[in-house]
Amino acid sequence: MNLHLDSLGIPSLNIPNLLEEIRPHLVEKINHKTKPIGSLGRLEELAIQIGLIQNNLCPKINNPTLLIFAADHGIAKDGVSAYPQEVTYQMVLNFLGNGAAANVFSKLNGLDLKVIDAGINYEFNGLEGLIHKKIDKGTRSFLNEPAMSHSHVQECFLKGAEISFEAYRSDTNLLAFGEMGIANTSSSSLLSSILIKKPLDQLVGTGTGLDSIGLKKKFEILNHALNRFHQDFPNPSILDIFANFGGFEILMMAGAMLEAASLKMLVLVDGFISTAAYLCAYSLNPSIEQYAIFSHLSGELGHQYQLEFLKKIPLLNLGLRLGEGSGAILAFPILKAAISMINEMASFQSAGVSTQNL
Amino acid sequence: MNLHLDSLGIPSLNIPNLLEEIRPHLVEKINHKTKPIGSLGRLEELAIQIGLIQNNLCPKINNPTLLIFAADHGIAKDGVSAYPQEVTYQMVLNFLGNGAAANVFSKLNGLDLKVIDAGINYEFNGLEGLIHKKIDKGTRSFLNEPAMSHSHVQECFLKGAEISFEAYRSDTNLLAFGEMGIANTSSSSLLSSILIKKPLDQLVGTGTGLDSIGLKKKFEILNHALNRFHQDFPNPSILDIFANFGGFEILMMAGAMLEAASLKMLVLVDGFISTAAYLCAYSLNPSIEQYAIFSHLSGELGHQYQLEFLKKIPLLNLGLRLGEGSGAILAFPILKAAISMINEMASFQSAGVSTQNL
Repeated sequence: MNLHLDSLGIPSLNIPNLLEEIRPHLVEKINHKTKPIGSLGRLEELAIQIGLIQNNLCPKINNPTLLIFAADHGIAKDGVSAYPQEVTYQMVLNFLGNGAAANVFSKLNGLDLKVIDAGINYEFNGLEGLIHKKIDKGTRSFLNEPAMSHSHVQECFLKGAEISFEAYRSDTNLLAFGEMGIANTSSSSLLSSILIKKPLDQLVGTGTGLDSIGLKKKFEILNHALNRFHQDFPNPSILDIFANFGGFEILMMAGAMLEAASLKMLVLVDGFISTAAYLCAYSLNPSIEQYAIFSHLSGELGHQYQLEFLKKIPLLNLGLRLGEGSGAILAFPILKAAISMINEMASFQSAGVSTQNL
Repeated sequence: MNLHLDSLGIPSLNIPNLLEEIRPHLVEKINHKTKPIGSLGRLEELAIQIGLIQNNLCPKINNPTLLIFAADHGIAKDGVSAYPQEVTYQMVLNFLGNGAAANVFSKLNGLDLKVIDAGINYEFNGLEGLIHKKIDKGTRSFLNEPAMSHSHVQECFLKGAEISFEAYRSDTNLLAFGEMGIANTSSSSLLSSILIKKPLDQLVGTGTGLDSIGLKKKFEILNHALNRFHQDFPNPSILDIFANFGGFEILMMAGAMLEAASLKMLVLVDGFISTAAYLCAYSLNPSIEQYAIFSHLSGELGHQYQLEFLKKIPLLNLGLRLGEGSGAILAFPILKAAISMINEMASFQSAGVSTQNL
């Protein structure tokens, strides 16, 4: 495992820079395919990125896996969500019973699905099929105090790294990152607002479907928490930010993303919450960017501002706002097509097709 | 076959309106799935549209098939394309050899691929694997005269309808529409400019990859042809418009689209040229709209104006400008996911998940 804690207890690791030597060969290979140069747009960019990551002219995706990190949030009880907290564990059972959107889409598009109890307020008693990494039975409400301790933050990152390392040892080279956790848009809004330095109102959305009164209430609660934080932590460390507003699933996902990139795996990011986790990872090591692919633009308000900050345009824009990694799964066939293009298409020469009049 | 010629010789047929009775039941079924209401965005719209078309709460896609209509254009020899005319037949041979992007993506996403010789300037001698519907060995250049006769127009529509009817009889209920034909963006630009009443410069793009000098030359040639047309046909009939600027593959595709809709098949439209064919079909019978799904926004300039006119937002925006139906194939997994969602996802009740706090 590459992720460790540095002398200050901050999660730390090296992420290798991509080797650029192969780039002109990738470009040349793509330009010889039987199609006008550049005519496959973003598929060509993806093929080049994946080829660079794998340092291979014939890149492959092995055992693509969706990780769904699930946890509960103390703030749920303060009325920020349209759904009650027990939906978190109920949906985890739904994942294990193959009834959720993530299951149906993963089966369709050929991803393996793994569900992680990162800190759900429910006793699963070692239930089979679930990856048990529970930190605690949900976070504390961050309304009046930090959601968790520094040591919980550290534990999240380390356990997340363990999960990616395990996947790596099973020959997986692509991880998609989804989540489940009632009230986790609230946690994501606060983390993102601080990390990308944008006003909170740009990052608070309707989540699972609040009405306008519910949205106003959610914003007021989160704004109160943010003011409390600024008062209590005038010069916050990165650990303070994570401990105050982190969800267990969000920080564990951030740890898993960092470890995945350090192992040169593809990091397929989902929507608003997945991108909040990515922002946590990115704030620790921006080199992760080279391994990341942004799958879709969520219907949740703040996602566009997160992506603007990161200067990324995601592959899909379908008005999804479900979470569970659903957008990542739906974008996955585009990655597969990019790989097929570079590996399977004929060249002008092999197909006997005339090239451009130049 | 439903498409026929009316007393004026214009292609004509009835397209049934969707039965709306089932809509509330489709909406209810989707709203009971284990996800926040509306959270699957455009997938929910697609599931409803497909359910309405099939008048079925459990819609299915059977034998999805991509039709690639290929033909040559006299205008190619006037210097409007970056590629020589022989690329049309060479690419058709590449399709039959499974080397093109359309082959690789169709195989990946589970579509059957059929290639039609609608009028290629090449003698295939009954080559197996190709659907032989040749009208002529390419159109005439439309620079100084119509590209084809009225009877050729009629033949295109009737032969196109035959192809869809044949697919229907093989139990196919989704047709995707792609094309191949050097210079067919030129034909599409002129047809579209006239049909959507937009200035020609908004509809002339770089096609397979012209530089700025090539683009300027292409525009001048097409503008000359358009002026010639307005002079020769001050009050053109729809047959005059099609005969002047049609490509055999474009009009045959239009006929196939009309027949498909009349048989309640799904019509999956690709990019700029496929949408030009759709505009021809739509100008004859706008009811086709109920059966159409627009797959992607092409990188070719005019596509956005075609879609604006039609008030349609396509599913993907990946900077594709290849043709061959490539964008339609890449969007197809989203349709499959919409179908899986409505058929396979658990309901709140079946999964024992709590519903919204209301």
